[in-house]
Amino acid sequence: MKIGMIGLGKMGYNLVQNLLRNGHEVVVNDVNPEPGQQLAKVGAEFAASIEEVAAKLTTPRIVWLMVPAGNIVDQVIDRLIPVLEAGDIVIDGGNSHYKESIARAERLSAKGIQFFDVGTSGGTEGAAQGGCFMIGGDRVTFGVIEPLFQAIAIDNGYLFAGKIGSGHFLKMVHNGIEYGMMQAIAEGFEVLSKSDFDYNYEDVARVWSNGSVIRSWLMELTENAFSKDPQLDGIRGVMQSSGEGKWTVETALDLEASTPVIALSLLMRYRSLETDTFHGKVVAALRNEFGGHAVVRS
Amino acid sequence: MKIGMIGLGKMGYNLVQNLLRNGHEVVVNDVNPEPGQQLAKVGAEFAASIEEVAAKLTTPRIVWLMVPAGNIVDQVIDRLIPVLEAGDIVIDGGNSHYKESIARAERLSAKGIQFFDVGTSGGTEGAAQGGCFMIGGDRVTFGVIEPLFQAIAIDNGYLFAGKIGSGHFLKMVHNGIEYGMMQAIAEGFEVLSKSDFDYNYEDVARVWSNGSVIRSWLMELTENAFSKDPQLDGIRGVMQSSGEGKWTVETALDLEASTPVIALSLLMRYRSLETDTFHGKVVAALRNEFGGHAVVRS
Amino acid sequence: MKIGMIGLGKMGYNLVQNLLRNGHEVVVNDVNPEPGQQLAKVGAEFAASIEEVAAKLTTPRIVWLMVPAGNIVDQVIDRLIPVLEAGDIVIDGGNSHYKESIARAERLSAKGIQFFDVGTSGGTEGAAQGGCFMIGGDRVTFGVIEPLFQAIAIDNGYLFAGKIGSGHFLKMVHNGIEYGMMQAIAEGFEVLSKSDFDYNYEDVARVWSNGSVIRSWLMELTENAFSKDPQLDGIRGVMQSSGEGKWTVETALDLEASTPVIALSLLMRYRSLETDTFHGKVVAALRNEFGGHAVVRS
Amino acid sequence: MKIGMIGLGKMGYNLVQNLLRNGHEVVVNDVNPEPGQQLAKVGAEFAASIEEVAAKLTTPRIVWLMVPAGNIVDQVIDRLIPVLEAGDIVIDGGNSHYKESIARAERLSAKGIQFFDVGTSGGTEGAAQGGCFMIGGDRVTFGVIEPLFQAIAIDNGYLFAGKIGSGHFLKMVHNGIEYGMMQAIAEGFEVLSKSDFDYNYEDVARVWSNGSVIRSWLMELTENAFSKDPQLDGIRGVMQSSGEGKWTVETALDLEASTPVIALSLLMRYRSLETDTFHGKVVAALRNEFGGHAVVRS
Repeated sequence: MKIGMIGLGKMGYNLVQNLLRNGHEVVVNDVNPEPGQQLAKVGAEFAASIEEVAAKLTTPRIVWLMVPAGNIVDQVIDRLIPVLEAGDIVIDGGNSHYKESIARAERLSAKGIQFFDVGTSGGTEGAAQGGCFMIGGDRVTFGVIEPLFQAIAIDNGYLFAGKIGSGHFLKMVHNGIEYGMMQAIAEGFEVLSKSDFDYNYEDVARVWSNGSVIRSWLMELTENAFSKDPQLDGIRGVMQSSGEGKWTVETALDLEASTPVIALSLLMRYRSLETDTFHGKVVAALRNEFGGHAVVRS
Repeated sequence: MKIGMIGLGKMGYNLVQNLLRNGHEVVVNDVNPEPGQQLAKVGAEFAASIEEVAAKLTTPRIVWLMVPAGNIVDQVIDRLIPVLEAGDIVIDGGNSHYKESIARAERLSAKGIQFFDVGTSGGTEGAAQGGCFMIGGDRVTFGVIEPLFQAIAIDNGYLFAGKIGSGHFLKMVHNGIEYGMMQAIAEGFEVLSKSDFDYNYEDVARVWSNGSVIRSWLMELTENAFSKDPQLDGIRGVMQSSGEGKWTVETALDLEASTPVIALSLLMRYRSLETDTFHGKVVAALRNEFGGHAVVRS
Repeated sequence: MKIGMIGLGKMGYNLVQNLLRNGHEVVVNDVNPEPGQQLAKVGAEFAASIEEVAAKLTTPRIVWLMVPAGNIVDQVIDRLIPVLEAGDIVIDGGNSHYKESIARAERLSAKGIQFFDVGTSGGTEGAAQGGCFMIGGDRVTFGVIEPLFQAIAIDNGYLFAGKIGSGHFLKMVHNGIEYGMMQAIAEGFEVLSKSDFDYNYEDVARVWSNGSVIRSWLMELTENAFSKDPQLDGIRGVMQSSGEGKWTVETALDLEASTPVIALSLLMRYRSLETDTFHGKVVAALRNEFGGHAVVRS
Repeated sequence: MKIGMIGLGKMGYNLVQNLLRNGHEVVVNDVNPEPGQQLAKVGAEFAASIEEVAAKLTTPRIVWLMVPAGNIVDQVIDRLIPVLEAGDIVIDGGNSHYKESIARAERLSAKGIQFFDVGTSGGTEGAAQGGCFMIGGDRVTFGVIEPLFQAIAIDNGYLFAGKIGSGHFLKMVHNGIEYGMMQAIAEGFEVLSKSDFDYNYEDVARVWSNGSVIRSWLMELTENAFSKDPQLDGIRGVMQSSGEGKWTVETALDLEASTPVIALSLLMRYRSLETDTFHGKVVAALRNEFGGHAVVRS
């Protein structure tokens, strides 16, 4: 098939290579022309603008967005609407909030354009070699685009999950689980690091990656990380987050679902952004007030 | 009544003054002679040794220990046993683990000596002016020592809680609740401090101390703390702990009681002892591994 | 002063009595005429409609809303706007979200009407006898309405907290702290209930209310509750929530503030709404899968 | 090599088959003769008693214990000591507490017997087909028994972790991580189950098992579980635990390591053992006290 890919960052770039390698044609575009020109050398068709992407496709046009979540998705859709027509298909493969995807589907539906919300997992390596895709939208129309997922997903690595929004919702929850798993693994190594034993963390992560109950891709990546920096001396324990963990907790609150582990994983990330805390000062001051306990002066 | 007080730190010293003011006689002893000599000036009877405490009392001797929890309690009891006799009474008013109190009661019981485990709350101010006492031991013998608590406790501020161990158990749980309350208050101020509003924290603590649902002595102490240092700039948020919160969590684990708030209050204290964490490094390294997310270099 | 009170539920009704007793005049209105008629017997002026409230006041009119948070506040304001004029004052004493209060202030400001967001604490008893009020709005205009708070608040029980929104924000955080404190207290009794000791919970709550570090109004209420039902046999442990705890956690997430205790207090409430959980089934099924551990059949 | 295996439950039985298949000779014993008789049919040598195990081995005797953790391990060791001699080797492959393993090593060392603490992971399937082994003990002597692990472990599936105790410590922490991972996965499905979408959980677990960041053996087992019971209708969400998660948390407390996710995973298991809670009753009663909120009557 021939599709357009808008957004050629780490994920989009790798997806295009994956599609090309699997026999599809891809018209590529990005605000930055460089990655598109690189991809043109390996078989992609370069488009200088969003409008040009549409012009280079035949109906029904299929346009895949792989741009940062939020306003940029809307801006791209705003420019696509005038140049697409009824029956065309827009796929958002980014980390959009599922409620925004539902709203976008309605907006596009008014012009007869079909929308699919696709959660993408597997990291940059997955995008290049075979990733995991969770897809929401119209089940019948999905048949049109399914060959794309057959091409770029690992075996059993894509799922038509249900009505619009269900794809990004699933990806959101996937990331919530990911936060919890990562924190669980990290806490385990925290305990090891404070113990009297003298563990080689790379060796530990390797043995846990082979045959144990907790074997997982994340544990393999833990092994990789320790193989490069045995004590992680080179980095600080600042745990950034990019939004989907927060969305999972907010959604859990809305649904009155008790998710303590996912919530705590997120809160510990926030805690890690600070070297000292105001709440700590309040507790320290209170201990001093009632018991005369010493405080650490700043 | 006449009793002996061994251990004249912040708590013991204030308790002696409280007892003297309320008409009791107190023989005082501490490893450091100075506080005992000070108390002798206001009516206490100085004893140079533990043995001398016993010698200066008449049967049934009543000896109150107010020494640091742990081995020191046992050391004092070891020295008391030879100089006490059947029918005498030992009171441990310190923060001992309730299981140790049960063991000590058995040891003393073998010589016919009664033991009471007394949890003391209210801080140094409470010890001086009227505190809160949770008492475990033999109910009948309790009648002998009850006048002491009528003297030094605030109205309704003492409770015969039940069999041996029940006093220190109650104090332990009290401290667990205290950890949770303090952390809850502190988290509230953390949210205020990160908000767009420009609160005067002392004013906030004052209004919350007067008529609100969360009015409490801890909130009044929060007001005090902010009155001295409006932003707590002078102290670091290092939250030490002295053991009873940990015992509460350990006990909850043994009892299979779900106590997330008390547990997290303790874990956040441990977290505050570090400016960076190994678990944070592991999570940061993992984010870099699967998504190429930037890490903060150390 | 003379003011209008719209909303005569538990809180509004008691506030009117408080205002009347302290020498103010109050025009009262509610969708249900009965409470207003009752209050008319003790000196309030009954108004059959929102419009009639405005008609019975002289400029600058002061109208206090004590209606359920959410749409109803907007509906009342929609009806007030046509019958108020520039210089009049609207006070929302309910549990509104601070962001909605900011939006309402802007809407009213377009007509020259001043708005104050007032967080009210102290329960129904506080409303009647002297409560706690956290007030956001224009500092200069606050002088006009301050006599009301001098009348109905306990000493030091009101605070002009800052610009619009700061009153309801403060009340929201107050409730977050309240959730944490309540859960901490409750976990303590959970541990007691599972222990080998045989505590009288009312006695425990009483002794902890007198002289202890954790003495607080909530502990006094705990004593009251146990005095009526010593083991709380008559009620189930279903912990409802009315929104402000959730808002506190959502706000903490937005501010990247780590508030584990408040978050967990909320999540345990959600957990309590269910007698069985889907996440529990997943864990039980997994234990069976990898270790052959028995499951409990439903 | 020829070794003795004492304890032929799910794990021991499978390990013997694994050893036999890989060319080792095994003398088998269990309090229940049946599994040993079964194994005798496929090449094992049956021993009617612990003493007979020792008698059937040649020096240096190697005896592997695969019995329930706790007193039973000590009872077996008590019977082994008289029939073993200096230079013999005892391996404890069960889920013993690492501190007990250190104590046992000392006890055996007094007779010149070497002891290895071996944490075994991978479930019953791993024991049969190739598991994961974490080994503590004397590094030089380890060379003697290493061929066993080369036979029964999956590739890279065993690790000599360090001095005595380090094997069981590692297994303990492994289980702590396992608790956290399981709870994270389960919370994700909890959110899905409360959402408006209509997910097929088996399909979701399958797609997450293929190419996603959270792919893991536990996710594959989740797929298996849903394949048998699509909504897990047949089981209750009672999450039992067998001790190692609790040990991990206790150890974390001792080490002052902040492990909120592992701790909460355990506390949610305890919570799941109850359909109603005392702490819930206390919170519900308090809400009624201060705000007149309705309670659910029991």
